[in-house]
Amino acid sequence: MVAEERGARREMTYGMLGGGSGAFIGEVHRKAIALDGSARLAAACFSRDHVASRKTGQSLGLADDRVYPSFETMAARESDREGGIDFVVVALPNHLHYAACRAFLDAGIHVVCEKPLCFSRAEAEDLGRRAKDRGLLFCVNHTYTGYPAVKEIRELIHSGAIGDIRFVNAEYASDWLAAKGVEEANPQARWRMDPATAGKSNCLADIGTHVEDLVSYATGLRISRLLARLDTLVEGRALDDNAAVLLDYEGGAKGFYWSSQVAIGRDNGLRLRVFGSR
Amino acid sequence: MVAEERGARREMTYGMLGGGSGAFIGEVHRKAIALDGSARLAAACFSRDHVASRKTGQSLGLADDRVYPSFETMAARESDREGGIDFVVVALPNHLHYAACRAFLDAGIHVVCEKPLCFSRAEAEDLGRRAKDRGLLFCVNHTYTGYPAVKEIRELIHSGAIGDIRFVNAEYASDWLAAKGVEEANPQARWRMDPATAGKSNCLADIGTHVEDLVSYATGLRISRLLARLDTLVEGRALDDNAAVLLDYEGGAKGFYWSSQVAIGRDNGLRLRVFGSR
Amino acid sequence: MVAEERGARREMTYGMLGGGSGAFIGEVHRKAIALDGSARLAAACFSRDHVASRKTGQSLGLADDRVYPSFETMAARESDREGGIDFVVVALPNHLHYAACRAFLDAGIHVVCEKPLCFSRAEAEDLGRRAKDRGLLFCVNHTYTGYPAVKEIRELIHSGAIGDIRFVNAEYASDWLAAKGVEEANPQARWRMDPATAGKSNCLADIGTHVEDLVSYATGLRISRLLARLDTLVEGRALDDNAAVLLDYEGGAKGFYWSSQVAIGRDNGLRLRVFGSR
Amino acid sequence: MVAEERGARREMTYGMLGGGSGAFIGEVHRKAIALDGSARLAAACFSRDHVASRKTGQSLGLADDRVYPSFETMAARESDREGGIDFVVVALPNHLHYAACRAFLDAGIHVVCEKPLCFSRAEAEDLGRRAKDRGLLFCVNHTYTGYPAVKEIRELIHSGAIGDIRFVNAEYASDWLAAKGVEEANPQARWRMDPATAGKSNCLADIGTHVEDLVSYATGLRISRLLARLDTLVEGRALDDNAAVLLDYEGGAKGFYWSSQVAIGRDNGLRLRVFGSR
Repeated sequence: MVAEERGARREMTYGMLGGGSGAFIGEVHRKAIALDGSARLAAACFSRDHVASRKTGQSLGLADDRVYPSFETMAARESDREGGIDFVVVALPNHLHYAACRAFLDAGIHVVCEKPLCFSRAEAEDLGRRAKDRGLLFCVNHTYTGYPAVKEIRELIHSGAIGDIRFVNAEYASDWLAAKGVEEANPQARWRMDPATAGKSNCLADIGTHVEDLVSYATGLRISRLLARLDTLVEGRALDDNAAVLLDYEGGAKGFYWSSQVAIGRDNGLRLRVFGSR
Repeated sequence: MVAEERGARREMTYGMLGGGSGAFIGEVHRKAIALDGSARLAAACFSRDHVASRKTGQSLGLADDRVYPSFETMAARESDREGGIDFVVVALPNHLHYAACRAFLDAGIHVVCEKPLCFSRAEAEDLGRRAKDRGLLFCVNHTYTGYPAVKEIRELIHSGAIGDIRFVNAEYASDWLAAKGVEEANPQARWRMDPATAGKSNCLADIGTHVEDLVSYATGLRISRLLARLDTLVEGRALDDNAAVLLDYEGGAKGFYWSSQVAIGRDNGLRLRVFGSR
Repeated sequence: MVAEERGARREMTYGMLGGGSGAFIGEVHRKAIALDGSARLAAACFSRDHVASRKTGQSLGLADDRVYPSFETMAARESDREGGIDFVVVALPNHLHYAACRAFLDAGIHVVCEKPLCFSRAEAEDLGRRAKDRGLLFCVNHTYTGYPAVKEIRELIHSGAIGDIRFVNAEYASDWLAAKGVEEANPQARWRMDPATAGKSNCLADIGTHVEDLVSYATGLRISRLLARLDTLVEGRALDDNAAVLLDYEGGAKGFYWSSQVAIGRDNGLRLRVFGSR
Repeated sequence: MVAEERGARREMTYGMLGGGSGAFIGEVHRKAIALDGSARLAAACFSRDHVASRKTGQSLGLADDRVYPSFETMAARESDREGGIDFVVVALPNHLHYAACRAFLDAGIHVVCEKPLCFSRAEAEDLGRRAKDRGLLFCVNHTYTGYPAVKEIRELIHSGAIGDIRFVNAEYASDWLAAKGVEEANPQARWRMDPATAGKSNCLADIGTHVEDLVSYATGLRISRLLARLDTLVEGRALDDNAAVLLDYEGGAKGFYWSSQVAIGRDNGLRLRVFGSR
């Protein structure tokens, strides 16, 4: 948005769940929003540890009374408050997404939630309905579709530049879980490898979702059926750290997706190749 | 081989089956052998059309009496002849490989045969036995394993540089069959798309074999089981023009191979990625 | 700076000269500072057109009384004011750098100035002295040396990884001035091509400075003599749009720098190659 | 040339000067000619050491009476002989090019000579006149202009695809002389670094010639003046091992060439960039 267009608008305020000291993605959200310049952090529950949470809040210039001990309290108070937050960013571990999103949607506050959204399709559809009923924005952020290069790919494909799509080969290769035992030292790795906090899948849910989001955004293809092999390539893990998926799309195109957290030498290596009839 | 080492050796002579006017790979064999400098073309049956075959022979400096009307005649005469060929290069369509190899092996002549070798495992094993019984060399040429880069990869892997192999992602993407109807104009495409001359598979047999040959050569991995999807992405074809294969290897590593003849923009796009424990 | 370290610090405020509607680099400074999160824009003189300047200020949330009609007034008032700006960003055309920097340094305010710094070495040294005398920070921002990749290069070179440096080949190739007459439509291009506002050089001063800054930062080499050819490759221009420089460095290494604004297909194409004795 | 077109042609024979054991480029010529298939090696003077020369000849299937003790004898005998060689390949050190070419041209034999052709422009023009007077082919081989990619570049430029040429940046970076003292162990390096056998320049003459040949072939540009800095980057050498050249072309385009034999990590790194008005 150019400065001039922004002239008449009130600056928005937002809240954050998660994203405290030691977390990864919350800080990324804060920087991205600062870069955009249209909203300011005003409330948060950064951590279950309220003392640590306050400390983070102080370092970010938040008033103590807007750093909350729980997301439920935060949803209630911000909803009641004159000038409460416009939206909340949910940057919590997966198992808390559903409850947190529901609390804020029910409190009438717009929600931006990290992926993977929920543990089940039923949960996701329930949240969608709640947002719709109240006329709220409910966003799941798959960052890569915001890239200009991806938008250009989408435009090229939709313009017919490559004809009818025949085959898609997409991948997200990274290596941060390549070392055996990384989950002992790294809290991030620990909750992602624990079915209680991560859900049914680690790798495919965490980064495979980026692959499918990218493909569906860029191509418009819809999956009709798929065959997935969830691999545990580092011994002793409860969840997948690599995944290979064969896909049939509606209309006859075929695809293959590869996601990996053990591909040594790759770092957020997202790659999309789409082959068409010309 | 350096010049000095070659000093004492008699120049070898070889024969060729196929490789006449309009053929693709025969000329490649002739150039490769000329480049090496250790053998000279001395006999051939380039084509079923004996007149055309003679013409090709003349253009390549062959005596008319060593251009034969059939491979059976050629095997018999060259075997009987003083100074007959040392080896034969079989550059015929797939359905003729078995009979041609057998004829020359039974005639006591070393054989170099194009891939894919045969229509069935039983045929391949039969040829292997015949060669072994007579002490003959019987070679199938998968050209890419001859590349210095591939030999370097193999050496690195075998030296333990990447630890234990966890995942392989390999592909051979090309586009020469991307156009609908290419098989009407191109005799090469025609026989490769016809189960009578090509066998059970087009794409996977023709170039997927390079992928597996490359992987097994470079890594030493042996497949324990696989799941292959043979795709016909251009409507109306009797055989596959694209293939996706999920593999489990002995010892626990996993893999994925992609072969395509309809990947527009790729030309002999062989790529190998091997990920290990370090 | 991590959040926790920032805890005790007062948020800084800064002012901006230039960077109004239609300008290029001012907005970049504002975004970069927002991303860092340590300072907030509080005063400005965006343009000679005070009405336009106020409008920009309003869109960015500035109070009207801190949008000034001239940089001289701004330096005086912000210096006198309780809670005046901590530093100023000078994003004006080249010919105003010297006077603007001097005004703020003399007013006791830290300065960040765009490159190329001045029209003469004497001016630059004068500013340096003024900053030193008052104990002020005086920064010229050559953005590329802030990149982690560049810092890694510097560290590698200084660690002795490539031995003694023998040859440097560095370039900054771009194409935004490739079209004849671009300076008629584009105010940016106009002032950069006018010796009155740009100084003695356009291309070499504007982007060649990045090349030398990058080389001296990464390698530590100091130029002992040089031979520069300033090219005007698009007819009718008063200043260079391309430049080739041969360099001798102290200690015997040699170099070549190429800068271009007419290299069609390149966009901020900065490239550095350093060759050493191993 | 396709086989069929070649049908009616007599196979040519050629002779070689230089290219014995330990030499580099002679073997390359032999392989390239074998690959083409249109000529056969029939005579040679591989080395001043006649015994070694005969041994090389035997390993390559040459009759002893066509391996000569000197190029003068070879030129005389092959010229007199029924069925003597059609052309000679001169793969000798630079200082022998002029005399060898002259001997064979005067004997009525076509000549292919390695670059750099001669020590002076007068010698080169003298050879050109002798060839012209006798109606002989006199070729200097700059291998890179034979590449299809280079021919495509030439065609694109000549089609007007990039408009009028403005700037050329071309380079040939290699590293085989990067190590200090390489000339003690390597006879190739030794004669190239000795003004008596190499001439006035090592690097610029040996590979800089490829750069200019490539540029003039691809672009059609003709140099109007130039400024060259011949660098000796490894101490103690009598000739250049790196060179930087600034060029003005007829018509106003400008250029820069870089040649290096000490650019560690580069191996025959020829690169051409041509920028035009569109």
